[in-house]
Amino acid sequence: MIEETSTQDIDRRIQMAAEAFQFLKNTTISERAEFMNAVADHIEALGEELLTVTHAETSLPLARLTGEKARTVGQWRSYAKAVAAGIYTEARIDLARPEKQKGDLRKYNVGIGPVVVFGASNFPYAFSTAGGDTASAIGAGCPVIIKAHPAHPQTSQIMADAITTVIKAFGWPEGIFSHITETSYEIGTYLTQHPDIRAVAFTGSFTGGKALFDIANRRKDPIPVFAEMGSINPVFAFQNLLETKAEALAKEYIGSLTLGVGQFCTNPGVFIALKGNPLDRFINALKEEIQEITPAKMLHEGIFESFEKNKSIAIEQPDVELIASVHTESTAGSAAAIKTRAKNFINNRVLSEEVFGPFGIVVEYETDEELMEIARQLKGQLTITIAATHEDVRDNGALITILKDKCGRLLFNGMPTGVEVVYGMQHGGPFPSTTDSRFTSVGPDAVKRFVRPICFQNWPDEFLPDELKNDNPLQISRMVDGIMNSESLKLQTT
Amino acid sequence: MIEETSTQDIDRRIQMAAEAFQFLKNTTISERAEFMNAVADHIEALGEELLTVTHAETSLPLARLTGEKARTVGQWRSYAKAVAAGIYTEARIDLARPEKQKGDLRKYNVGIGPVVVFGASNFPYAFSTAGGDTASAIGAGCPVIIKAHPAHPQTSQIMADAITTVIKAFGWPEGIFSHITETSYEIGTYLTQHPDIRAVAFTGSFTGGKALFDIANRRKDPIPVFAEMGSINPVFAFQNLLETKAEALAKEYIGSLTLGVGQFCTNPGVFIALKGNPLDRFINALKEEIQEITPAKMLHEGIFESFEKNKSIAIEQPDVELIASVHTESTAGSAAAIKTRAKNFINNRVLSEEVFGPFGIVVEYETDEELMEIARQLKGQLTITIAATHEDVRDNGALITILKDKCGRLLFNGMPTGVEVVYGMQHGGPFPSTTDSRFTSVGPDAVKRFVRPICFQNWPDEFLPDELKNDNPLQISRMVDGIMNSESLKLQTT
Repeated sequence: MIEETSTQDIDRRIQMAAEAFQFLKNTTISERAEFMNAVADHIEALGEELLTVTHAETSLPLARLTGEKARTVGQWRSYAKAVAAGIYTEARIDLARPEKQKGDLRKYNVGIGPVVVFGASNFPYAFSTAGGDTASAIGAGCPVIIKAHPAHPQTSQIMADAITTVIKAFGWPEGIFSHITETSYEIGTYLTQHPDIRAVAFTGSFTGGKALFDIANRRKDPIPVFAEMGSINPVFAFQNLLETKAEALAKEYIGSLTLGVGQFCTNPGVFIALKGNPLDRFINALKEEIQEITPAKMLHEGIFESFEKNKSIAIEQPDVELIASVHTESTAGSAAAIKTRAKNFINNRVLSEEVFGPFGIVVEYETDEELMEIARQLKGQLTITIAATHEDVRDNGALITILKDKCGRLLFNGMPTGVEVVYGMQHGGPFPSTTDSRFTSVGPDAVKRFVRPICFQNWPDEFLPDELKNDNPLQISRMVDGIMNSESLKLQTT
Repeated sequence: MIEETSTQDIDRRIQMAAEAFQFLKNTTISERAEFMNAVADHIEALGEELLTVTHAETSLPLARLTGEKARTVGQWRSYAKAVAAGIYTEARIDLARPEKQKGDLRKYNVGIGPVVVFGASNFPYAFSTAGGDTASAIGAGCPVIIKAHPAHPQTSQIMADAITTVIKAFGWPEGIFSHITETSYEIGTYLTQHPDIRAVAFTGSFTGGKALFDIANRRKDPIPVFAEMGSINPVFAFQNLLETKAEALAKEYIGSLTLGVGQFCTNPGVFIALKGNPLDRFINALKEEIQEITPAKMLHEGIFESFEKNKSIAIEQPDVELIASVHTESTAGSAAAIKTRAKNFINNRVLSEEVFGPFGIVVEYETDEELMEIARQLKGQLTITIAATHEDVRDNGALITILKDKCGRLLFNGMPTGVEVVYGMQHGGPFPSTTDSRFTSVGPDAVKRFVRPICFQNWPDEFLPDELKNDNPLQISRMVDGIMNSESLKLQTT
């Protein structure tokens, strides 16, 4: 249950967010970019103390946290650059012409309204309080109400303070950013149902994400939910490649599978290959590699318990063979891998469920029909990897056509863990990997999630937003009568 | 109930659509544009017979139908041009660089999959079988299953035949377009729940659109529904303007309200102004104008009955004064307008419901607070119109800030009926005017509704889609390392 004092406080903060939205709508893209760069500077300036606190809260190694902090700073800066360039403005101007009935029509994107962001536990910087969702919502002109993840409260507070400091320095309304530390189960429902909330961003479990999606769609006025809910990220390894590098591939695979104790959304949980000697070599190498892995503490007790439970469920399925498992008496996440035949994988849907942690399933197929059936019955994935030579790709056109429908990112060799924060990245795939495959939560295009278009018809130039004014004061690229340009319009202003 | 033979037939057609989707995915944007232009040519070539048939089915005047046919042809051509230009491809290329971990990342938009389109009754060409939804889905690379509107079955068949003829001429798979003439109530549910359907487009009533939205979101794998469900399209008239042209504005308003027997989604159902002499002049002129209106036959019996029922409900509300009403004994839609005070309009929610047809409510406010409260409690609208001088706009900044959150299109004078099919148009507003304010169903940007991004990581050039190949064979504009250009990439191909 949420305490009544809590709901009063939350109502007050959302009210402040709604008011701050009216302020943000009237900021220019350059003002918001300046704000975002200031947040980046503040986070960058946070010293060793931050890393020490987060390390204690999450058990993530300092080197990883250092990298993630740099990535987070980079997110704020690259999203700021994209916002300043006006990319998400998508300004379209159709001038009045004698043959047109409606005269002058100008459209651009504005922020959708206050956004609730749920911090994720596995990226305490990049996907949490001051993470990519917060940066992209503010970039779009939307105030953020962050629901802090209870697994790293101090880290969350430090990040919230950084953002609040910048708000004060800019003299902007406090309501632009609110940090909610309430931990009751009901808080997610309460925030998602609140009439002034216009969108939700979430990274976490299927159960959590789907619940928010359902709540949002059952509102009197449904709102979008961008939930990234994970994936088994299958690797399809083909014969020509496997023959030449079974052992190297095993090393690469296990490295990706156990990176960060397997706590990545893009962890390659399933490896699919043809039965035979190359696959046997792969499996043998995998066994050796797994035995080298030192179990490490997971992010929090809940993740560890789920991992152990789900791993055991998978291992105990019929017709499953344990390849290797490293056990310790500690509460550390210990890596394991199992092997099963394609038929069993196809028929036993339990084996297609994500086990969040360092756990892999090797699926051995015997016929092309089995391979195709595995592809056809795959649920939506964040990533699918093809471990293949060029010849393998040529030989498997029909399969690859199917796989393209099943994922947001398709890799040719390499491993899927880790995402590059660039425009070309797509982090989001068909349901159930996310609730909306049309958007990404990584890269500057993440901003797109929080805007909607508004059209001004025959509106006097002086009252138009800067993005649509004749003289193009922001010097952004706009589509004018179907042609992209960054020019001023030489018109008589009305 | 749907007959079992019917469901078997529908299953077969959807199966064909799923197969055709794999074909369409491999067509280039120029091939699809060529196809769309051929459909435009075929529709353009349909002669008097089409108009005669549609006139008999819909009672819409021949002049209107001639215009709507031209608009429909224009939609296919302008969407084709946009598709050929690669605008919805949104190609993003981030080349491999030494500091990047992930190497080469390339993203573009592909069709989302088979789309069900529900034909609308009020635009038998532009929003029905061969309307904007069908054109934009095919442009995106998605096969279409059209649920024909039962109010104009012959028109629908002629349009379906035109598309089918082009499919045959191109030698493309039949499954690209299916015409479903089944009329049972359950057919909408059946189509929306079908596992191979990936999106739904609908224009019609709130009840119908919201039902499809709920069905789609309760699927095991939810899919997007783009439902345009109508709106009361308020006109806010300000004092300086009203004083100078009360009578002219009444003429303009009634013209828009009764155009096409009021059967437009953007019909201005509510007129809001300050109590006083200018508004009294407006109301007097309105009374005279309404008495001049000849009742005309509505699109179909169902629309007529709903109109008469909803009009009566509104007229019978307490504290409502009839301005004028033209009655006939026929089944023709007869125009009417009522007047009420702001307090009554704010407190009695019945008066904020759309009455689809030639019916208007004049709302008289006495204080600025009442005006602001009307704005604050407005539900989402397709359009809002400000009838104002520049001075009025300056005096009402706070009000206009609120109104921007409530609509997709904001007009400065003029009337909202009719939409221009251009990039700058936004036809779609906050819920409940549509289920997704982030998209438009009019203008080339309607194509955006049916695509999703896919990213290729380190993929060999020869296997990339043309849109992402190094040498840019389609010569489209792409974002390469953050910069837009249409150039070929001079790289060593892998």
